[in-house]
Amino acid sequence: MTDRTQALSDLLAFQHETEALASIAGRLEWDQETMMPTGAAAQRGEESAAISGVLHARRTDPRIGDWLAACEGAQMSQADAAKLRLIRRNYDRTLKVPARLAIELARVTSVSQGKWAAARAADDFAAFVPALQEVVKLRQEEGEALADGGDIYDALLDDYEPAMTAARLDEMFGEMRPRLRALREKVLEKPLPQGLSGTFDTVKQMEFAATLATTFGYDMTRGRLDLSVHPFSSGSGSDVRITTRVSADDPFNCLYSTIHEVGHACYEQGIDPAYALSPLGQGVSMGVHESQSRIYENQLGRSRAFTGWMFAQMGEAFGNLGVPDAEGFYAAVNRVRNDFIRTESDELQYNLHIMLRYDLERALISDDLRPADLDAAWNDRFEKDFGYRVPKPSVGCLQDVHWSVGLFGYFPTYTLGNVYAGCLDAAMRKAIPDLSDQLAKGDTSAATDWLRRNVQQHGSLYRPAQVIENACGTAPTAAPLLDYIETKFSDLYDL
Amino acid sequence: MTDRTQALSDLLAFQHETEALASIAGRLEWDQETMMPTGAAAQRGEESAAISGVLHARRTDPRIGDWLAACEGAQMSQADAAKLRLIRRNYDRTLKVPARLAIELARVTSVSQGKWAAARAADDFAAFVPALQEVVKLRQEEGEALADGGDIYDALLDDYEPAMTAARLDEMFGEMRPRLRALREKVLEKPLPQGLSGTFDTVKQMEFAATLATTFGYDMTRGRLDLSVHPFSSGSGSDVRITTRVSADDPFNCLYSTIHEVGHACYEQGIDPAYALSPLGQGVSMGVHESQSRIYENQLGRSRAFTGWMFAQMGEAFGNLGVPDAEGFYAAVNRVRNDFIRTESDELQYNLHIMLRYDLERALISDDLRPADLDAAWNDRFEKDFGYRVPKPSVGCLQDVHWSVGLFGYFPTYTLGNVYAGCLDAAMRKAIPDLSDQLAKGDTSAATDWLRRNVQQHGSLYRPAQVIENACGTAPTAAPLLDYIETKFSDLYDL
Repeated sequence: MTDRTQALSDLLAFQHETEALASIAGRLEWDQETMMPTGAAAQRGEESAAISGVLHARRTDPRIGDWLAACEGAQMSQADAAKLRLIRRNYDRTLKVPARLAIELARVTSVSQGKWAAARAADDFAAFVPALQEVVKLRQEEGEALADGGDIYDALLDDYEPAMTAARLDEMFGEMRPRLRALREKVLEKPLPQGLSGTFDTVKQMEFAATLATTFGYDMTRGRLDLSVHPFSSGSGSDVRITTRVSADDPFNCLYSTIHEVGHACYEQGIDPAYALSPLGQGVSMGVHESQSRIYENQLGRSRAFTGWMFAQMGEAFGNLGVPDAEGFYAAVNRVRNDFIRTESDELQYNLHIMLRYDLERALISDDLRPADLDAAWNDRFEKDFGYRVPKPSVGCLQDVHWSVGLFGYFPTYTLGNVYAGCLDAAMRKAIPDLSDQLAKGDTSAATDWLRRNVQQHGSLYRPAQVIENACGTAPTAAPLLDYIETKFSDLYDL
Repeated sequence: MTDRTQALSDLLAFQHETEALASIAGRLEWDQETMMPTGAAAQRGEESAAISGVLHARRTDPRIGDWLAACEGAQMSQADAAKLRLIRRNYDRTLKVPARLAIELARVTSVSQGKWAAARAADDFAAFVPALQEVVKLRQEEGEALADGGDIYDALLDDYEPAMTAARLDEMFGEMRPRLRALREKVLEKPLPQGLSGTFDTVKQMEFAATLATTFGYDMTRGRLDLSVHPFSSGSGSDVRITTRVSADDPFNCLYSTIHEVGHACYEQGIDPAYALSPLGQGVSMGVHESQSRIYENQLGRSRAFTGWMFAQMGEAFGNLGVPDAEGFYAAVNRVRNDFIRTESDELQYNLHIMLRYDLERALISDDLRPADLDAAWNDRFEKDFGYRVPKPSVGCLQDVHWSVGLFGYFPTYTLGNVYAGCLDAAMRKAIPDLSDQLAKGDTSAATDWLRRNVQQHGSLYRPAQVIENACGTAPTAAPLLDYIETKFSDLYDL
């Protein structure tokens, strides 16, 4: 073995062990949200800190730098080259952030999350301001350390969506906002479709959720479905677990959360097993991840064809659903209502919620908005986009946990995921002309196979936007998503 | 801070992190037996290897030696002195075993367990012999490395029961075997009491198991009860989880497994919280651990008083139990039958099963018995103690997993646990004269409080035999257990 191949082999073996430890840390978080006894929280904090310490030490291990220096530029497979690129990227990013700042960020965000929860419960924005100031300041510092003189917000965004820029987002979002606002106004002039009514046994909901998961190709022998307060997907490779929640009078909450998380989980389960426990073995970005969860949930799961099948299935499971027929069920699944909460929003309005957050967080990071003024700025912007006032911060700027834990640059990846989903859906429907007929029979296999082959199997082999471009044949734009939304809701609301 | 106190503080902080990581590794094993998807086994192997590697590196970290050298002999609290003693003990033991041997043992035992499972399934002892030979040879080597010229078996035993010796066990067991064999023969001349009959809904069994767990003081806010193939207790501090199993026609399997594991778990939950994630924060030895599980299960759980309460409770839960009254239920709980399997044995015969294993494993380790001759030796000895022949190795020398994974020196701690339980029971009943009246009402609190105060709270502060002596006022002997068994079964069988 030459020194170069030895260095590559040592580096990849070291990385493999790091990925295995990171997988354990992830499973610990899963346990915390699903299984952990309530009284174990303090001890779990100690355990999490210990494994975080081990991971941090490994990620900043100077041997990584030596190995990289020794093997970069050598002849190697495409996969190994991609692994090296990702290891280099993460190592450089980790080294750019001073240890003092990393520790301070971990400390402050764990405290500020508690401050946020208390402030939200008390509907007291002022109580959250000092914590928000601290978090913004530290993330600005971190962004500056990462940016190398470039844009600070771009440097933060890069953590969640590598190579994406605010300039590119502005372009997309600028195209989306007026069209979505115009459509929204027209739709809301129409009468509100009927929702479901009836009793929805929670055990039966979970049974049907499991049926839906399997219907969308989720492999239960390499995963499991449990309950948690907030639904999530966790893990990669051959152990990818999902959670959902149940509410007795709103089965859609449980069922569409399940389909959403199944999208995330199938991405992870669909990755080439050869990439397991390597830098290629996870979804490539938050945006591409969200594209999978959203296309499963919306373009497939909320389609007229698939809801027709679901209507029949749910009728068998729950009896009378309180809607007259499959078309009424489709309208109930997709009804557009005035509301304040992002996570409960429909396909049409969801991206307006995101763009609002995106503009405000950019202003916070660039110091154009003082943290103390966030509440007022939120409420003004909300009224502009939605036409009515936010009555209290718990349904306004305190509704999401993200900023309290320092997630600046994360929100836009939700809309980016929708944009990518729009592109993929257009390409997929071209490739599978009779997709609707299949979905009407509850058969998602052609669609999920197409997504697995074109997106999921590659893991992190390609850069995020490249994955979408490879799958669709053209670079991603917002147009397919906008066309899809306008067509769907114009038809549904008879515009 | 002086150099000495700095070294102590650094050592204990390092140890705290190691304990937290060991706790994570333990929870990973719990997950594997209860929650893990079947398809995740290979990936889990990688994860387990990674965290084992991290733990091994920490346990052999040369800084431990430096810190110990710097602070040993300094003035410190009793607790810190005990922590140091345990850290020194484990560090020295770890260093004595060459890395090559440790790796070889890990590799061989993981393979030989599979060989054992296959041989047991095929009832083919010869197929297991090569694996057994390898394991015995490696453990002999390890024992030699640990023994410093002393007895090899003692060195292995010390892993599970520090400071115990084969000489001391021989003394105890020598007293027990004739008395137990004589009693057994008299009991088996009597008619076999009736067992339970009826239908025992498995969901109700689990509900009643949870009731029993709480009745014995298990704190569900710091634990949880799940199903697994083999019942176990896992974790320490504020996250101690137990499992049980259910069989539709044998509710005692589920219920007494639960009480047994609750005994282990209450030991861990009962330890002074100040010792959490320190070397004092776990049960001190396998023997003392087993004393808690056995006293909960047997001296309390299988007592006439407690089974009287249980009979009424189970009647409410399951209807007719197929026994006429509380006395018939008590007889069913405690019936003595000819059988081959240790784990299904009764209080009277259980220790005969252990002594058989103890004598055979000593002979294997001392080369007085060749692995190839184990099956024949087992069957001869079994016939001597039990009076009938073993028909096939799956119910003979292949019934237990222990030897296949290298656990030599472990079996005697089961009987030692029973001996300790006998001592504790005698002392406890003296301290709580009306204990039976309380148990008859399903109230175990005085008993479990006494055990918590006298045994459990101390964690690993004292040496194992010292814990029992402190609690009972005299050094442990087999006499109280033998008196208890003879009294109980003479009365029950009207001898």
